[in-house]
Amino acid sequence: MPDLNLNLDWNHVDKSIEIALHEDIGSGDITTSSLIPPKHLSSSVLLAKDNFILAGLPFSERVFKIVDSGIKFKSLAKEGEKIKSGTVIAEITGKTKSLLIGERTALNLLQRLSGIATLTAKYSAAVKGTGARIVDTRKTVPGLRFFDKYAVRAGGGSNHRFGLFDGVLIKDNHIAAVGGVGKAVKIARDRAHHLVKIEVEVKNLREVREALSARADIIMLDNMPAATTKKAVELIRTRNKDALIEASGNINLDNVREIAENGVDLISVGALTHSVQASDISMKFDF
Amino acid sequence: MPDLNLNLDWNHVDKSIEIALHEDIGSGDITTSSLIPPKHLSSSVLLAKDNFILAGLPFSERVFKIVDSGIKFKSLAKEGEKIKSGTVIAEITGKTKSLLIGERTALNLLQRLSGIATLTAKYSAAVKGTGARIVDTRKTVPGLRFFDKYAVRAGGGSNHRFGLFDGVLIKDNHIAAVGGVGKAVKIARDRAHHLVKIEVEVKNLREVREALSARADIIMLDNMPAATTKKAVELIRTRNKDALIEASGNINLDNVREIAENGVDLISVGALTHSVQASDISMKFDF
Amino acid sequence: MPDLNLNLDWNHVDKSIEIALHEDIGSGDITTSSLIPPKHLSSSVLLAKDNFILAGLPFSERVFKIVDSGIKFKSLAKEGEKIKSGTVIAEITGKTKSLLIGERTALNLLQRLSGIATLTAKYSAAVKGTGARIVDTRKTVPGLRFFDKYAVRAGGGSNHRFGLFDGVLIKDNHIAAVGGVGKAVKIARDRAHHLVKIEVEVKNLREVREALSARADIIMLDNMPAATTKKAVELIRTRNKDALIEASGNINLDNVREIAENGVDLISVGALTHSVQASDISMKFDF
Amino acid sequence: MPDLNLNLDWNHVDKSIEIALHEDIGSGDITTSSLIPPKHLSSSVLLAKDNFILAGLPFSERVFKIVDSGIKFKSLAKEGEKIKSGTVIAEITGKTKSLLIGERTALNLLQRLSGIATLTAKYSAAVKGTGARIVDTRKTVPGLRFFDKYAVRAGGGSNHRFGLFDGVLIKDNHIAAVGGVGKAVKIARDRAHHLVKIEVEVKNLREVREALSARADIIMLDNMPAATTKKAVELIRTRNKDALIEASGNINLDNVREIAENGVDLISVGALTHSVQASDISMKFDF
Amino acid sequence: MPDLNLNLDWNHVDKSIEIALHEDIGSGDITTSSLIPPKHLSSSVLLAKDNFILAGLPFSERVFKIVDSGIKFKSLAKEGEKIKSGTVIAEITGKTKSLLIGERTALNLLQRLSGIATLTAKYSAAVKGTGARIVDTRKTVPGLRFFDKYAVRAGGGSNHRFGLFDGVLIKDNHIAAVGGVGKAVKIARDRAHHLVKIEVEVKNLREVREALSARADIIMLDNMPAATTKKAVELIRTRNKDALIEASGNINLDNVREIAENGVDLISVGALTHSVQASDISMKFDF
Amino acid sequence: MPDLNLNLDWNHVDKSIEIALHEDIGSGDITTSSLIPPKHLSSSVLLAKDNFILAGLPFSERVFKIVDSGIKFKSLAKEGEKIKSGTVIAEITGKTKSLLIGERTALNLLQRLSGIATLTAKYSAAVKGTGARIVDTRKTVPGLRFFDKYAVRAGGGSNHRFGLFDGVLIKDNHIAAVGGVGKAVKIARDRAHHLVKIEVEVKNLREVREALSARADIIMLDNMPAATTKKAVELIRTRNKDALIEASGNINLDNVREIAENGVDLISVGALTHSVQASDISMKFDF
Repeated sequence: MPDLNLNLDWNHVDKSIEIALHEDIGSGDITTSSLIPPKHLSSSVLLAKDNFILAGLPFSERVFKIVDSGIKFKSLAKEGEKIKSGTVIAEITGKTKSLLIGERTALNLLQRLSGIATLTAKYSAAVKGTGARIVDTRKTVPGLRFFDKYAVRAGGGSNHRFGLFDGVLIKDNHIAAVGGVGKAVKIARDRAHHLVKIEVEVKNLREVREALSARADIIMLDNMPAATTKKAVELIRTRNKDALIEASGNINLDNVREIAENGVDLISVGALTHSVQASDISMKFDF
Repeated sequence: MPDLNLNLDWNHVDKSIEIALHEDIGSGDITTSSLIPPKHLSSSVLLAKDNFILAGLPFSERVFKIVDSGIKFKSLAKEGEKIKSGTVIAEITGKTKSLLIGERTALNLLQRLSGIATLTAKYSAAVKGTGARIVDTRKTVPGLRFFDKYAVRAGGGSNHRFGLFDGVLIKDNHIAAVGGVGKAVKIARDRAHHLVKIEVEVKNLREVREALSARADIIMLDNMPAATTKKAVELIRTRNKDALIEASGNINLDNVREIAENGVDLISVGALTHSVQASDISMKFDF
Repeated sequence: MPDLNLNLDWNHVDKSIEIALHEDIGSGDITTSSLIPPKHLSSSVLLAKDNFILAGLPFSERVFKIVDSGIKFKSLAKEGEKIKSGTVIAEITGKTKSLLIGERTALNLLQRLSGIATLTAKYSAAVKGTGARIVDTRKTVPGLRFFDKYAVRAGGGSNHRFGLFDGVLIKDNHIAAVGGVGKAVKIARDRAHHLVKIEVEVKNLREVREALSARADIIMLDNMPAATTKKAVELIRTRNKDALIEASGNINLDNVREIAENGVDLISVGALTHSVQASDISMKFDF
Repeated sequence: MPDLNLNLDWNHVDKSIEIALHEDIGSGDITTSSLIPPKHLSSSVLLAKDNFILAGLPFSERVFKIVDSGIKFKSLAKEGEKIKSGTVIAEITGKTKSLLIGERTALNLLQRLSGIATLTAKYSAAVKGTGARIVDTRKTVPGLRFFDKYAVRAGGGSNHRFGLFDGVLIKDNHIAAVGGVGKAVKIARDRAHHLVKIEVEVKNLREVREALSARADIIMLDNMPAATTKKAVELIRTRNKDALIEASGNINLDNVREIAENGVDLISVGALTHSVQASDISMKFDF
Repeated sequence: MPDLNLNLDWNHVDKSIEIALHEDIGSGDITTSSLIPPKHLSSSVLLAKDNFILAGLPFSERVFKIVDSGIKFKSLAKEGEKIKSGTVIAEITGKTKSLLIGERTALNLLQRLSGIATLTAKYSAAVKGTGARIVDTRKTVPGLRFFDKYAVRAGGGSNHRFGLFDGVLIKDNHIAAVGGVGKAVKIARDRAHHLVKIEVEVKNLREVREALSARADIIMLDNMPAATTKKAVELIRTRNKDALIEASGNINLDNVREIAENGVDLISVGALTHSVQASDISMKFDF
Repeated sequence: MPDLNLNLDWNHVDKSIEIALHEDIGSGDITTSSLIPPKHLSSSVLLAKDNFILAGLPFSERVFKIVDSGIKFKSLAKEGEKIKSGTVIAEITGKTKSLLIGERTALNLLQRLSGIATLTAKYSAAVKGTGARIVDTRKTVPGLRFFDKYAVRAGGGSNHRFGLFDGVLIKDNHIAAVGGVGKAVKIARDRAHHLVKIEVEVKNLREVREALSARADIIMLDNMPAATTKKAVELIRTRNKDALIEASGNINLDNVREIAENGVDLISVGALTHSVQASDISMKFDF
């Protein structure tokens, strides 16, 4: 089971959910208002209609609680668990109108997050035993980064930095503006606070050497051919046993194993969050 | 060219963008602060690295303007246009640090929206000449519905209702709670405001007949086999020439043409927005 | 009893109430802070000092709950009920300071909404038996539309569209920009989503005919003399039995019956919400 | 001309207007989006259709500027000016779609505020020459107090305290909780900050005497018969020439002159803001 | 014990606390998430490590409740109480992770407010028996004025006006713009609402006389030498026994007694809130 | 000159300033509204009345621009510059009323931030030449952390982590919950993202050794006596030349040099931000 300890700012999470609910409810649910008696009760379930890795159930619960604190939500599965098609993952009971109003927002979140976890789990499985870890990127959906990165962990992946504020990652454009890999690493180390490591993106072996000389903490091999990757790893391991190596760029399920076997520590995959296949989950009512 | 007239609440759009920017920038971009001289200028381009239908460029421009009103943004392509890999779609110049701070948020939005438009265009092409229109659903990413639905239009699709507030759509759960298709349609017509039509979901020919008797404005054939769909369409056309017919459920690029040829008016496709493949676009700097 | 099923976004309602409370409380109630011991308890009632139709009691309750969740609020009357002067409509008990802090905001809302319901009920009574329904407009107080339109329903009226987003209403300025009633109706039908009907405003019989030819769903007779209204209704009923007819403009309690008897379906009255006489309700304490 | 120096928090005003606009625009103006070409320009005017005292034009201008900063707004009348039916009070030009989107929100505000100013002016005229001033109350529309109180000034009235935070007003319930008028005034003077005066509500001559003994700064005669009012005024003038006298409760245009002639300094009228007749103003387009 | 009756807008207080928490927690507490098991419980205490006057405990409690409503918070001391080093001022038990997340924000608030109360108490003690009161200024930390002014009361001081909105204080720049002390006082009295007094700042005896002639309610002696202060007080007491006298400018613990003995009513001290020494309080865990 | 490259989220800064302005302006500046003619212009200066290190001028400018975009603000000094008493640090011209409304908020921010910079500069001077850097803590004023930490940089100090989200700092309570320094460091390294270093707090030499064995990146010597500090530094330098050493706890201007000379890399000082002496700066008008 992945580590999903949620030490987060729930007030902030609630605000995101309130925005999503308001987007859907707006001036009121005109169908439900017309048809469902205010005190009508229902019991319902969240039902898996496909196989997937579950992620986001605590947030779905939160959606319903925000709509109506009287709703009872009973989780029947754990975050990060492999769910088989046909499994009931939660039971939800309460006022029918409240269930109907929360349904779509809860499912949209749950289906996306489970989709992310499922794809992450595939990548993680593909590199199993190699020592490499799958990490995410900042290519998340605007406004939902917290949720997207959580789902990566639920799928057995690790998080890269959250944003621009919690990690130094020197990219090609920074290097060009400063005038070289080594110079950039040195300036960054001087100026960033002492708790962050310095990661630098390199494109070829010359830049790898420059990064090593400047004692970068993490070296990201960007879009490097397999052979060059192999050489870069050997070079780095020889010269700095503490440095971490990240592979990045054009990684897919077909080539991820080969890259991992080249000995890198981390493989970052933008597709985990930028191209998500929603898991198929529906809400079934039992009147 | 699709109709993309944006008569929208730009203040609200700006707030969504500010949330996305804050998520990424947080307490400050520590890499750029360390490395890029405050007055350093750059020119950059948004470059297509794949073929796609463009959507979201005005919002990307807005991201950069919100970061730094001094940035110049020149669009070189139109919303809904077919973009070939290698095309420069915009030129952006200004302070290097501002460009770097806006880059990821602008791209995340642009890549997702172009991805939606591109998929929508494939569905639209598949039904070309049949008279059927491709429409979206409420299966959008929480907090971004406005953007997602805009992208569907950019891809040549049409929008279904925006949320629970601007259209009556009576689903199976409403019908179960009320006790029948016909009863539900009648109550809804009495209670909803006079400018909205009444759409009802039906599962079989018996329910189609009930919907027709209650004079539903739109009849949604949910997950119906091809043969039943065909019969349902004939039945509806015979009894109410003004009614619209929507097909929904398990629709994909392989079966959408057949469904369209059965004579429905609208085909709703959740995948347009719930399972998006981000278009490949990058920002290149030219120092 | 009117249908007041509240399937709404209570988080959004709460935010409106919090804005109203902050406007009144600001940096603190300096009178109550000086005078009322923090643990002093009171029981109080909401007392009708006039005859009116009640609307807004659930929102008044919400005001007190937001001020102090320990307050007990017991409703003694129903929304939409005819209240006689002297009736106690609710009992409220709790900390005296909390009651005093919530008092004005709760009353301001309740008095306005009951005022709207009362006026609406007069209009509804005036057209009783004619088949015409009284509907509201967008002439509401900025920021309170949800509340104002709710009160119209409590008074036995119906709601027109909520805003610009949930109904197509083609007015004279749209027609002038496009170049004719018929053209406008056709373009709108092509472009709006399929769940909304198309309503068009017409000024004379020529425009009525144009609207009929374009098969508008709803025809609004704007400021038409009684005789013309009558002719327009006949013409419309003859040519399209499904079309709805709305009368609008310069409607008051003196002429509304006559207009209704001309056979229209809907009569929209701006005064319901733009010129409200607050109902007289006060909060009485019993120490 | 009244004194309307606006030294206010425009950021806060803008937020109120943004809430009002979003309430109306929501997910977009579907009529205008369908019909008005994005670059179509119009010139329009705000036209008086009744006689009234103008109030709120700067806020209407702000509405249009927030919708579209490219709109040109030219005021042709001054706040507090008597406007005759048929007068053009402003010229507004710009994109047709922006004008149409701002129209209703701008008018709703302008019509309400002019309505308040007009009613206030009637009350002010009624007491002309008596030395009494007409003041407002906290019976304003939730969320719009700033605007409502501004309009009272535009109509020649004066403002009472803005809210609970900027003036001590000891009412019957405070007195009951504390145990007497005199005691309440003394405690309040001890505890409130030194820049606020102490006003106390009294119901009879005994309480007037108690208020005088406690040296209240302002004495509010609540719902007192004319004869008692006269006696109270004499008593107060004799014993404390600096004290201000306010009359309150059941004041209308028929009795306000008599009350003023009894010699009070201030007459507070809840109806100024709780029961407003919107002034008739419309926006006319000239294509 | 000071009077600290909190008749305030708790929703607004909560929003300030939520901003502070989000500033600290951001995308999540990465140390606690890594190390503390989600269900791990702790008991902890707030421990005084210095002598001080307590202020802010109810807000610290609120911080923990907002982080996790399951936390139990037991106050063991009262606001305004003299606390000796080594005293346990509260017991807090609950999930370890929640305690750790709230710790810093709760302490930052509590230490600042107790620091303000402690300094205020020193000034109050210094003027004991003279009849002068110590009051605060608007020199508070941006965004925390409510809290800062509360702490002044907890320390036995009094509040001056809260902001620009609840008291008229005519300063040198206003006087210069208007053209004289007397003129300024008169205009202000005409235009401000009747519940606020008029305070004016004077620099010399000539201006004192002018203020007296204009019958200012409160006269602030700004930066006056001791001898002049004495003369000014005599002059004012002779000519207007009701006027209040405030001393202001360059006041410190060394000179405050002398100033008080000159007979002023109020002494305003900016340092109370602009130069705060945080009280030393820590949170100790007992596993 | 310190490095103050501001690559920050200006939208977020503006929101903080808007909150501060609203706190002060509230329902309007009643003094200025009464006295200052709306079009009255003034020129003013910000004048140093003490010696200090300047910090916060760009934010003061922002305050005035938010109040009134027509104000001209000309900075005459640089952030981090030593300012002598009597120096004019900025010229500000525009509408008198706007200058008066922005004055207090601008000064409150500027005086606090310059106070922080000044104190930081004293600490930095005290350790000059030792190789140690002065760093801040999370003991900042709630809601203003961004500003407080900026001022530390302006004073020549360095920032520690911003909050709980951008650095792992294992404190005594974490260690107690996990069961030992070494265990805690290892778990944290496994679970935190790869770009953050692991800092651990130690109390004695035994814990130093444990931290070294677990290869902590940074070792914080908490409240250690000088002799122990010296031994700890020797031990750490011998066993891990890459580890950083931070001294923390009970550091003041008297002992900071000695601590620095013991060879630590970083000295964290809570007083920099929790006990600030505001710099004396005033705004002078020249009519």
